Amino acid sequence: MIATNEELVFALRSVLSESQVTVNQTILEQHSKDESYHTPSLPDIVVFPETTEEVSKVVKIAGQYKVPIVPFGRGSSLEGHVIPYDNGITIDFSLMNKILEIRENDFLVRVQPGVTRSELNKELKKYGLFFSVDPGADASLGGMAATNASGTTSVKYGVMRDQVRDLEVVLADGTVINTGNLAEKSSSGYHLNGLFVGSEGTLGCFTELTLRVYGIPEHIMAARASFPTVKDAVAAVVSILQAGIPIARVEFVDEPSMKQVNLYSETAYKEQPTLFLEFHGNEAGLEQDVEFMKEIVAEHNCEGIEFETDNAARNQLWDARHNMVYAYSHGNPGKKLMITDVCLPISELAGAIEHAREALNTLALTGGIVGHVGDGNFHVLLMIDMNDANDIKGANEFNEMIVMYALERGGTCTGEHGVGVGKQKYQEKEHGKALLVMEKIKQALDPDNLFNPDKIIKVKR
Amino acid sequence: MIATNEELVFALRSVLSESQVTVNQTILEQHSKDESYHTPSLPDIVVFPETTEEVSKVVKIAGQYKVPIVPFGRGSSLEGHVIPYDNGITIDFSLMNKILEIRENDFLVRVQPGVTRSELNKELKKYGLFFSVDPGADASLGGMAATNASGTTSVKYGVMRDQVRDLEVVLADGTVINTGNLAEKSSSGYHLNGLFVGSEGTLGCFTELTLRVYGIPEHIMAARASFPTVKDAVAAVVSILQAGIPIARVEFVDEPSMKQVNLYSETAYKEQPTLFLEFHGNEAGLEQDVEFMKEIVAEHNCEGIEFETDNAARNQLWDARHNMVYAYSHGNPGKKLMITDVCLPISELAGAIEHAREALNTLALTGGIVGHVGDGNFHVLLMIDMNDANDIKGANEFNEMIVMYALERGGTCTGEHGVGVGKQKYQEKEHGKALLVMEKIKQALDPDNLFNPDKIIKVKR
Repeated sequence: MIATNEELVFALRSVLSESQVTVNQTILEQHSKDESYHTPSLPDIVVFPETTEEVSKVVKIAGQYKVPIVPFGRGSSLEGHVIPYDNGITIDFSLMNKILEIRENDFLVRVQPGVTRSELNKELKKYGLFFSVDPGADASLGGMAATNASGTTSVKYGVMRDQVRDLEVVLADGTVINTGNLAEKSSSGYHLNGLFVGSEGTLGCFTELTLRVYGIPEHIMAARASFPTVKDAVAAVVSILQAGIPIARVEFVDEPSMKQVNLYSETAYKEQPTLFLEFHGNEAGLEQDVEFMKEIVAEHNCEGIEFETDNAARNQLWDARHNMVYAYSHGNPGKKLMITDVCLPISELAGAIEHAREALNTLALTGGIVGHVGDGNFHVLLMIDMNDANDIKGANEFNEMIVMYALERGGTCTGEHGVGVGKQKYQEKEHGKALLVMEKIKQALDPDNLFNPDKIIKVKR
Repeated sequence: MIATNEELVFALRSVLSESQVTVNQTILEQHSKDESYHTPSLPDIVVFPETTEEVSKVVKIAGQYKVPIVPFGRGSSLEGHVIPYDNGITIDFSLMNKILEIRENDFLVRVQPGVTRSELNKELKKYGLFFSVDPGADASLGGMAATNASGTTSVKYGVMRDQVRDLEVVLADGTVINTGNLAEKSSSGYHLNGLFVGSEGTLGCFTELTLRVYGIPEHIMAARASFPTVKDAVAAVVSILQAGIPIARVEFVDEPSMKQVNLYSETAYKEQPTLFLEFHGNEAGLEQDVEFMKEIVAEHNCEGIEFETDNAARNQLWDARHNMVYAYSHGNPGKKLMITDVCLPISELAGAIEHAREALNTLALTGGIVGHVGDGNFHVLLMIDMNDANDIKGANEFNEMIVMYALERGGTCTGEHGVGVGKQKYQEKEHGKALLVMEKIKQALDPDNLFNPDKIIKVKR
């Protein structure tokens, strides 16, 4: 059944209120892009459901008219995930932004997908709890589950997939399922939680999430350690991990990026290759860990280590780190962000970062290197002039070099940003024949290919 | 194509050596059962492949003749997973028992599926490393991945699924895929690692596993704490968890089970509701944690706490705990084991254990209760006289009461043993419409339903 836009709007307004269905140009434009360099594309219609039932009704209408659906959280994705290249209906989850339940004794929360990580943490603080996953952006939790986001704390607490205990999902035919339960572990049935997390809206729309949260640690100690070279800093991290010191965060920031941080965040940190570190635990244990850590960084030529024990200084330090992307965007008006995202086995990390630095030089590109080095994940931030074909070409070439280097060493093309459209071309190289299994799953669950088409997997139509 | 057994043997011997394909009655019988009460059933043929290529060839022949395939590790499953109710070919992985690679700097190992957890740990010790997952049995690692096994350490280190970085899998058409990579985290493609772990041989045969291992902790402290009542012991665990004390193991053992332990392991532990605890960390941190833990257990009427710091006493303690199932089997010759396995949110645990104790009394059954209480997972061990219809009926009734209690409170019918045939009947109740998604996945990946048919999901034929 092929419908005109008017017919589709009419059908949608029969199940949602008039204000929940819009074709307003400004709103369409807001939903045509994310925070990346990927080319925008307009949806035909944006809807703002308030309940699971409304989402199910929208999905059923889309199915009836064979119109694509793109779920949209905060638009902070970095690989074009929410850009509707086939137009159709964008489902904006901003009105589904309630924290539904806090089970403090079970360390669990149930939320709607539009809640952001900072909104959740503000509420959890009242209970002495926190939610651990912290990507750069204040993303929606639904979006974070869709891309299997992570951030600075995964070295201790795990990635988004590790926090998801249950998802309520609307499937392609409008059926609503739950993928998990409230138990800490289960060996019952196939692991649908894990499958839907990271599926980027291609298998279903998330309408509720039950997430694992943690008690705020008794003691926290944060530090900045400066090194003469990138190699020293990365080698120090590998030694810390191998010594078994239970670190909660360990972030690498290179010299150019420290300059951007100081400019944007009005800090006066040393502009040298730097590790931002954090330790969580009891007081006695932390002291012993930190002493051991100091010995290790000294062996790797550390030129200065500053501790931040009070809350305010620690928050400033992590805000500076989290604002890195905005620091670059702010420092390069008119340009667009391309950010690489490979992750490698830890023994390959130093070589990979060195290779990235050399590749930047070879291609005469300006870029900063930062990374969640405890996980083997690092990013190169490039600001591209989208009107300069050479600039685009160089950046693409660079991205490809970085990805190929990682894939040849057992790594992945994306550690935390997801595939979207940007990493689609590397899926076959990375997964080989396993990609056929993914295609079969996509086809079994979304036979008309209406859920975020051509993200992750390009289905032949 | 319907083949006689002779034709099938002939076809299999065309790709394997004669000794790798057997119809010897004793060997068939060894592969007709597991460690549970489920009724045995003979395979037609048992094969012993040595390479991935050989497994692929066997699977192709099975596909050609439409003969079911059951993968077999050590036969230590507890829900009939490896029993070939439709006969066919059992693939025994005992000859695929090599540790292929130890990447000590990456905390990764690559093994064949027939390696057992104790074989792996023996080798890892040389590197100061250990593999964390420890079900009661010395199971094969392939089998542990197939059931998403866990054990006493998952409260700190996670379950089997958390350790699997990559699987090499032979699919229904003989294709060989890899489900993951060597990186600590990835947002690339659908999470096939998670899907295949826990799939119990119904989606493919594992031929290699890459697993996460850990550094042996700097300090380990183990303790036994005795309580006047079950309720006190379980309440103490909940308080320890809520206080944020990073415990590595916390096992509950009730009074009847302590008696069995003492009888079987020749120990002289107090025969009271007991917690077996373990802490991993640095010396100073552990001391502070243990002091805090002592205060908490005292508040819950702890009547005695004994610490084991030396290696030998600690090993004896954990061996006693691990031998629980054998202690019961040994103490009840001629009877068969039925063991419940629900897991609930931690706030529901005390009530669930109390309910189980009452149900035992109501049904006049004798059973011991033990549990990985830090995860909300507990087991009731029942020894059944399989010649006594009343005994079987009572045990089944009991199992069902326990499962229903858990499912009504957001729990799962199996925390770590898996579905097999024993928990198949609870899948619809637990998963609702999500079971249809699982069926679609099974159908997409194994259209002829040859891989361990009727385990987890009953496919209509």
